[in-house]
Amino acid sequence: MSFERKNIARIEGYLPGEQPSSADIIKLNTNENPYPASPLVAETLAAIQVGDLRRYPSALADEFCNFAGKVHRVSPGNIIATNGGDELLRLTLTTFADESDALAITTPSYSLYPVLARIHGCSLVEVPLNKDLTYPDKLNDLLGNLSAKICILVNPHAPTGALLPVSFIDELASKFEGVLVVDEAYVDFVDPALSYDSIPLISKHKNLLLLRTLSKGYSLAGLRFGYGIGDSELIAPIKFKCRDSYNTDYISQQLARAALKSKTYAMSTWDKIRHSRTALSEQLNQLGVKTWPSEANFILAKISENPGAEYVYQRLKSDHILVRHFDKDNLRDKIRITVGSEEENKLFISSLKNILKV
Amino acid sequence: MSFERKNIARIEGYLPGEQPSSADIIKLNTNENPYPASPLVAETLAAIQVGDLRRYPSALADEFCNFAGKVHRVSPGNIIATNGGDELLRLTLTTFADESDALAITTPSYSLYPVLARIHGCSLVEVPLNKDLTYPDKLNDLLGNLSAKICILVNPHAPTGALLPVSFIDELASKFEGVLVVDEAYVDFVDPALSYDSIPLISKHKNLLLLRTLSKGYSLAGLRFGYGIGDSELIAPIKFKCRDSYNTDYISQQLARAALKSKTYAMSTWDKIRHSRTALSEQLNQLGVKTWPSEANFILAKISENPGAEYVYQRLKSDHILVRHFDKDNLRDKIRITVGSEEENKLFISSLKNILKV
Repeated sequence: MSFERKNIARIEGYLPGEQPSSADIIKLNTNENPYPASPLVAETLAAIQVGDLRRYPSALADEFCNFAGKVHRVSPGNIIATNGGDELLRLTLTTFADESDALAITTPSYSLYPVLARIHGCSLVEVPLNKDLTYPDKLNDLLGNLSAKICILVNPHAPTGALLPVSFIDELASKFEGVLVVDEAYVDFVDPALSYDSIPLISKHKNLLLLRTLSKGYSLAGLRFGYGIGDSELIAPIKFKCRDSYNTDYISQQLARAALKSKTYAMSTWDKIRHSRTALSEQLNQLGVKTWPSEANFILAKISENPGAEYVYQRLKSDHILVRHFDKDNLRDKIRITVGSEEENKLFISSLKNILKV
Repeated sequence: MSFERKNIARIEGYLPGEQPSSADIIKLNTNENPYPASPLVAETLAAIQVGDLRRYPSALADEFCNFAGKVHRVSPGNIIATNGGDELLRLTLTTFADESDALAITTPSYSLYPVLARIHGCSLVEVPLNKDLTYPDKLNDLLGNLSAKICILVNPHAPTGALLPVSFIDELASKFEGVLVVDEAYVDFVDPALSYDSIPLISKHKNLLLLRTLSKGYSLAGLRFGYGIGDSELIAPIKFKCRDSYNTDYISQQLARAALKSKTYAMSTWDKIRHSRTALSEQLNQLGVKTWPSEANFILAKISENPGAEYVYQRLKSDHILVRHFDKDNLRDKIRITVGSEEENKLFISSLKNILKV
């Protein structure tokens, strides 16, 4: 006899990318930053004593919220700290969606979204990208007119890396009647020349929730720390009612604040990654591999039928290089490569050349 | 306009005990261990480098589960690691309870349980303790015959500290048709002479889930790490389907393992706390204050109407001593005191003597 709810029994869980414990793997599969966090984060970590862990942490991560508020020029009440960005996504459903409600997403995108809808028991409305993985015409109308309770967009998009402009989000937040979540997990890697900044929109749109994470831009995937930014009335029920009572731990609260404090250091890594992204994309194109223009820290690349993306993924793996291959419609013929360090990218290109025999 | 679901709009959130940041407060309100974690935990923390946090942690905390399995003589598949015990409680509802289902608890108990039921949208069946806060006769029949999907017992009980024997759990797990969760947050403080060990029951009862936490016994409340122990088929849907994809972080996985490895050290703190518990209870009785026999690291104490529990709580607070006062039926005339260090207990008794003028 199984005790699971019916909707849980029906589903398969989310399958995260492989996380090998071996250090000699070139890991270009789950979009980590190839450079470690700042010296200030290192100092903060070194200063933490085991006695500091004896007591409960701040339930609401108050000091972090105060500091993040200053950084983003909003008030602490506009910020909620979460155990990674994933917790915020889950909490959004818990707080705003009944089982009779629908979650709207574009397809493909972050494969966790449909899993969260299935666990929560609400329905899913999918707006497919074009066959070439560009956004369809009139996407704003397509999404804006849906009667879903929540819409999640990942911007820059995963796994293509495409960036929708702030004006698009502005317009969609006006049109869409539910809660619009913009998952900005990769926003730190956007070219500063594009002046992308959606945060001022939260004072205009009471239904707009922005997701940030320290996993990618701040090199702290192992820490599990993310946060949401939105109108204080949108944030309040998530923060004061639905969140687990002590959802973020003492160490992550301290390190997350240190990470934001030393943002300039992180920015220097983003700059390096952008340069590598351009170089890597050009090298792939030179090998005859089509890539998508990316504002994130990864590149989606199409592998021709011969030898095929699955084969290339496996061959790279046997060379101790992990990239991501999704066994999904419109993605089976592609691999997603995280931009690594210069050395890692070089080894990847060299291995790929060998596999493709070019 | 509010975007909350109706059941969320209706509720008030869980109110955690106060967590003052000031170090000069004698904090006897949220059941932390007064002694810091072991030297091995301290060494493990000191060895963690910021570069270790760059990559995602083990999604399933595999090494921890392997080690905890050995400690408890069960297999790793019987263990799920969670972001504090609270996450396991929430996940239990997510995995097993539909909105049409009921959650059964005894009242009063841990005040988070009803909040979780309200957030999840399922109903609550409460079996009240006797007016003197002892368990009612035939509790096993009362709970066992309920048609709830989940029953949560906290054992030792909070806030009384009363321990139900293993035979009681054995019998109830047979009778009750849903999932029986035994929240053993305080189990480490049980007198070893009582030989309380419920873990062998998981091989007999497929519906039994035991909750453990490192917050109390292992002095790591700031870390947020707990785990569940149960039949592998009961654990599987929680672990592989409903859990957030990376729910525990790299540091907590390392420190939690170090904590279990140095259990002997933690046991020496439990022993000290048990001695202090006996002494503190006797001293309270000598002041004419009635206490409940406790197998946990706290003592429930009844304060006579004159001066009243709320007054004593406030006066202690003005002496920089925090205890817990619950504004709830049958608890308004009581305070709950965490057993502190010998010095803290002495200062508490001295302040209380002064307040009670005895």
